[in-house]
Amino acid sequence: MSDANLRDDVRATDVAAVRDLVAATGFFNDEEIAIAAELVQERLDRGEASGYEFLFAERDGRLVGYSCYGRIPCSSVSWDLYWIAVHPDLQGSGFGKRLLADTEDRVRAAGGLAVYAETSGRAQYRSTRGFYLRSGYAEGAVFADFYAPGDAKYVFVKRLDR
Amino acid sequence: MSDANLRDDVRATDVAAVRDLVAATGFFNDEEIAIAAELVQERLDRGEASGYEFLFAERDGRLVGYSCYGRIPCSSVSWDLYWIAVHPDLQGSGFGKRLLADTEDRVRAAGGLAVYAETSGRAQYRSTRGFYLRSGYAEGAVFADFYAPGDAKYVFVKRLDR
Repeated sequence: MSDANLRDDVRATDVAAVRDLVAATGFFNDEEIAIAAELVQERLDRGEASGYEFLFAERDGRLVGYSCYGRIPCSSVSWDLYWIAVHPDLQGSGFGKRLLADTEDRVRAAGGLAVYAETSGRAQYRSTRGFYLRSGYAEGAVFADFYAPGDAKYVFVKRLDR
Repeated sequence: MSDANLRDDVRATDVAAVRDLVAATGFFNDEEIAIAAELVQERLDRGEASGYEFLFAERDGRLVGYSCYGRIPCSSVSWDLYWIAVHPDLQGSGFGKRLLADTEDRVRAAGGLAVYAETSGRAQYRSTRGFYLRSGYAEGAVFADFYAPGDAKYVFVKRLDR
């Protein structure tokens, strides 16, 4: 991404930066925001053993997007996209799609054959579902009433070319 | 279960006992065995905040079966059956089905509306898949090549009566 600096090392300041970014998107509730920040802390505490990899995108020293991903425990080839978030100022600019493509490149380089991403079936997440479909993901499964009654979980999957 | 003592408190000795039990089943590889033991340790370290609940079945002071389950983060109603294992000496006796039913009772009492369980599509796990189907679970999804090329993930789901 020519218009943002990417880095994959995790710093102590990223815990708060991720919390602020995820909150700023308006897409996530308090529990989800706390979990996003916790995963950064777990990476800091446990290193690679945490299973969480990060890709941070910064502009002028400010975090404007990030992804959190990792090999799924007990799978040798499937990776999970745990989080991807882009600051509202940059949404709709193709920035998220490039961040996702960069993440997939790293999964592929690590030997991954597929990326899984989950999101909600609620109307609020229609743009998120469209984002995955436009990025080459297929709808792998829908679990009704998963998050709450009336709130399904959609599982998207992308097979990576070798 | 009239023929086994059940308890849900977690003790330091359970880490090794779970590791031994899971290994004894012959169903799990080294990474899976390590993860099963890690979840017990995480419960000891973090308590309820770990998100992992346990049900241990003992006979003559020996661990003969256990389940590990918990509410799925970000869901208010869906629970995950992370592990269920029964010692080979007791398999095929209905013991596992009763352990599963007791686990579901606890999920229901905690407000859960559904239990999810995952297993492999490999031939070795045919009995496991049959176990879930006979216990009122439905096949919710199949993800091809999930664990490894040719090794799919099956997701089973059971809706709990209120």
